[in-house]
Amino acid sequence: MPKQIDLNSDVGESFGAYKIGLDEAVIPLISSANIACGFHAGDPLVMAKTVFLAVENGVGLGAHPGLPDLMGFGRRVMDVSLEDIRHYVTYQVGALQGFATQRGLPLQHVKPHGALYNMAVRNTEISDAIAQIISGQDENLILVALAGPNRDELEAIATRHSIRVAFEFFADRAYNSDGSLLSRKLPGAVLHDAKAVAERVIKLVDHGSVTAVDGTEIELKADTICVHGDNPEALALVKTIRTSLTDSGIEVCPMGTLP
Amino acid sequence: MPKQIDLNSDVGESFGAYKIGLDEAVIPLISSANIACGFHAGDPLVMAKTVFLAVENGVGLGAHPGLPDLMGFGRRVMDVSLEDIRHYVTYQVGALQGFATQRGLPLQHVKPHGALYNMAVRNTEISDAIAQIISGQDENLILVALAGPNRDELEAIATRHSIRVAFEFFADRAYNSDGSLLSRKLPGAVLHDAKAVAERVIKLVDHGSVTAVDGTEIELKADTICVHGDNPEALALVKTIRTSLTDSGIEVCPMGTLP
Amino acid sequence: MPKQIDLNSDVGESFGAYKIGLDEAVIPLISSANIACGFHAGDPLVMAKTVFLAVENGVGLGAHPGLPDLMGFGRRVMDVSLEDIRHYVTYQVGALQGFATQRGLPLQHVKPHGALYNMAVRNTEISDAIAQIISGQDENLILVALAGPNRDELEAIATRHSIRVAFEFFADRAYNSDGSLLSRKLPGAVLHDAKAVAERVIKLVDHGSVTAVDGTEIELKADTICVHGDNPEALALVKTIRTSLTDSGIEVCPMGTLP
Amino acid sequence: MPKQIDLNSDVGESFGAYKIGLDEAVIPLISSANIACGFHAGDPLVMAKTVFLAVENGVGLGAHPGLPDLMGFGRRVMDVSLEDIRHYVTYQVGALQGFATQRGLPLQHVKPHGALYNMAVRNTEISDAIAQIISGQDENLILVALAGPNRDELEAIATRHSIRVAFEFFADRAYNSDGSLLSRKLPGAVLHDAKAVAERVIKLVDHGSVTAVDGTEIELKADTICVHGDNPEALALVKTIRTSLTDSGIEVCPMGTLP
Repeated sequence: MPKQIDLNSDVGESFGAYKIGLDEAVIPLISSANIACGFHAGDPLVMAKTVFLAVENGVGLGAHPGLPDLMGFGRRVMDVSLEDIRHYVTYQVGALQGFATQRGLPLQHVKPHGALYNMAVRNTEISDAIAQIISGQDENLILVALAGPNRDELEAIATRHSIRVAFEFFADRAYNSDGSLLSRKLPGAVLHDAKAVAERVIKLVDHGSVTAVDGTEIELKADTICVHGDNPEALALVKTIRTSLTDSGIEVCPMGTLP
Repeated sequence: MPKQIDLNSDVGESFGAYKIGLDEAVIPLISSANIACGFHAGDPLVMAKTVFLAVENGVGLGAHPGLPDLMGFGRRVMDVSLEDIRHYVTYQVGALQGFATQRGLPLQHVKPHGALYNMAVRNTEISDAIAQIISGQDENLILVALAGPNRDELEAIATRHSIRVAFEFFADRAYNSDGSLLSRKLPGAVLHDAKAVAERVIKLVDHGSVTAVDGTEIELKADTICVHGDNPEALALVKTIRTSLTDSGIEVCPMGTLP
Repeated sequence: MPKQIDLNSDVGESFGAYKIGLDEAVIPLISSANIACGFHAGDPLVMAKTVFLAVENGVGLGAHPGLPDLMGFGRRVMDVSLEDIRHYVTYQVGALQGFATQRGLPLQHVKPHGALYNMAVRNTEISDAIAQIISGQDENLILVALAGPNRDELEAIATRHSIRVAFEFFADRAYNSDGSLLSRKLPGAVLHDAKAVAERVIKLVDHGSVTAVDGTEIELKADTICVHGDNPEALALVKTIRTSLTDSGIEVCPMGTLP
Repeated sequence: MPKQIDLNSDVGESFGAYKIGLDEAVIPLISSANIACGFHAGDPLVMAKTVFLAVENGVGLGAHPGLPDLMGFGRRVMDVSLEDIRHYVTYQVGALQGFATQRGLPLQHVKPHGALYNMAVRNTEISDAIAQIISGQDENLILVALAGPNRDELEAIATRHSIRVAFEFFADRAYNSDGSLLSRKLPGAVLHDAKAVAERVIKLVDHGSVTAVDGTEIELKADTICVHGDNPEALALVKTIRTSLTDSGIEVCPMGTLP
């Protein structure tokens, strides 16, 4: 049986007359779509259109809930309570489920966006709150979380709430030797060489490891790889990754179909 | 078997620090709750709390979707397309369904709010668009519509989309002899005498008729009566109606349980 | 003395992470900037940046107030009252004046946006309400209005409120023989031939006339010409118009400096 | 010459159909109004009405800018940059100035709201950014800041930007012995005895001191006292304070008229 991996990307981030992302081009290249739900980006028409595109391309449907900060694109940390987070996630996952239901389909996964994602990485109480809501919505839903140092804790949370967690790898980001991401504020945090990025992805899938910024090889197991479709360069990188995976005999599959 | 009627009220209209409506007091008196979904009123915390209150009181859960106009409380007509309406309703019904799902419950009904309700009364294409979305969400969901001149057309729409429609009577509004509501701009449009209002309700349930503003008796069959909980006077009126119904041997039941 | 004309364009329409318009490229080509004020488009950072760009290029600063409908980009008619309009315009003009004041400069003009502009064309009570607010803000501010059939009425409104009105010509739109714009719903409403558009502009400035869609020549006097910078084609058209004006010895000046 | 003090209160916090605050009752009792500007509360109609009420009562007009978080009433800390803050304040002060200009009046002061106020207390770089914008808007505008430990630093900031700062005392809040406010999370943080609160105010005005929570007397000079009009109890407290001041021969004056 061939090796398998999922490719996920943030899509459906347009709003009204405003367009962000090359969704028509990137969606056919990925296997799981993180669809914005109207708080940090996205609106009902964009959500309907994005669900349509994902379904047409056999791509798994995922909610990408964010903080209520359209002006800041959900990238600014806000001092929200766990109760706020639970209800914000319920609202957004429910709204996206509405569009999936109109097509007769369930959602596949939930991946928090931007500041909410980063807050969850730093504070597992937030991951726990989100997992609780995911479980209450549908126990088949998968929580997407950063493959990093708190892997065991996240697996315990998922088990406690009877859901699955998919760990994601950032193909174009440098890693510290403890498995955490190198801060974007530091030089070299983002990798720009498409060939090198594709090789990292292949090694990750084949060997479950990545070379950290200090040169050490660290074990890193991931179920899904985060890619971007914001601009032509990002899109070209996705194509390179996808081609490399195919050439290496690795199948690209929605995370919900992975064993 | 006793006669039955549903009492519905708009609730969950608070937003953040802003409070509208005496929800804690009115919810125990009604049988169906029209819960705002965040476009014209309501926010995720308010929705969670309102669903909780309704469930605790055995009250049917309904979505109350509106136009995206918080500043105007969804009361201003906007030149939105049928496509806009379909997706706005999908989003809001889905979001509220999220909160109901967290409690393991389905929604019972959908009642458009304010300007969207009035637009649907005047343009059955809008009712058709909303019925299509309701059906796509859950064929057991009931569309709430004005009991009035276009009853037959609304029943045909509901049948076409395999859903039920519940017709509502406005207890405190004067009716024209064609079964339409007397415009709010005309004197006498809103009735303030609680005893007279309660008597109209009893007559409606017992005889399926109402006295129009010109003195004629008109046939008017309704499944649900719209009441209000915005202020102490409105609340007193609901209590009077409820007591009159009980005294007349009429049972107050969620519309979903009516035959 | 050379003939003079103003070129105005809608700018500052980006919002947060969302970018609309090639402002850096179009602002050096125009003489008056209609800057979005945060209701239908624009945000405080975008407004600050756009005021900076306009001032650097000697372009007159104008407020471009719209309806409170970011999701619809202010293009959808809303049933707002005259009182609503007065206060929405006060708010937005004041907010933009704040950014101009930080640079020590006054605003030059106010041009309503989208649906509000169209509502004002159809209902001079709305133009009157806007003129009243402009006058209350600063009697030197100029109201920009469509050069069309109700020119005399608009001049009477401006006189009554002690302000000036600048009439604008749409370079790429077809006109009816009564001086109104041909509806966008009809074929031929928008002209795409850059050379033909530029020739219309020259004729308008030189002779005060335009050829209507039925072939008749109609008198049309305008102080400013509306151009667009949304996309590369629009930008190329502005360059063609600007070059034609220069080649014809016509000076491009901010409307506030016209006699 | 009689002693003088200013009483300030947050007003104009209603939004659309939502009402917060007993503005009609509290405005006649105060001398300076902090008027919400549409980001955390307030809308154009509310701003117009509140400016009217303040002017009718001879109350100084102040802008009360907040973070863009209507759902959280501007009370949640957000990770905004100094540049964000500068432009958010410019926008909101400009918008309110628009309504004052329609009445031919200047603004008197600017007081940041909620989380922005607290962020400025903890980080004088924020106070500096706000002072810079206030100065750029109108050098006669007064910055309202907490009378507390960083008084000297705030005075240096105001001097650097050629504006005045007014220090405010919270009549119903307990103080630490270093002049800072006792955290609201601790018991006794808010005083509820109207008579005791009024006596603190008189002592503050007469002697420039307050009794800290540990019983020590600390020096505290203030130009303005913050009072509230959210509910009948708060309003009764304002009346008690106002009467005590009058009985003690202390004049209540807008901060702009204080020496």
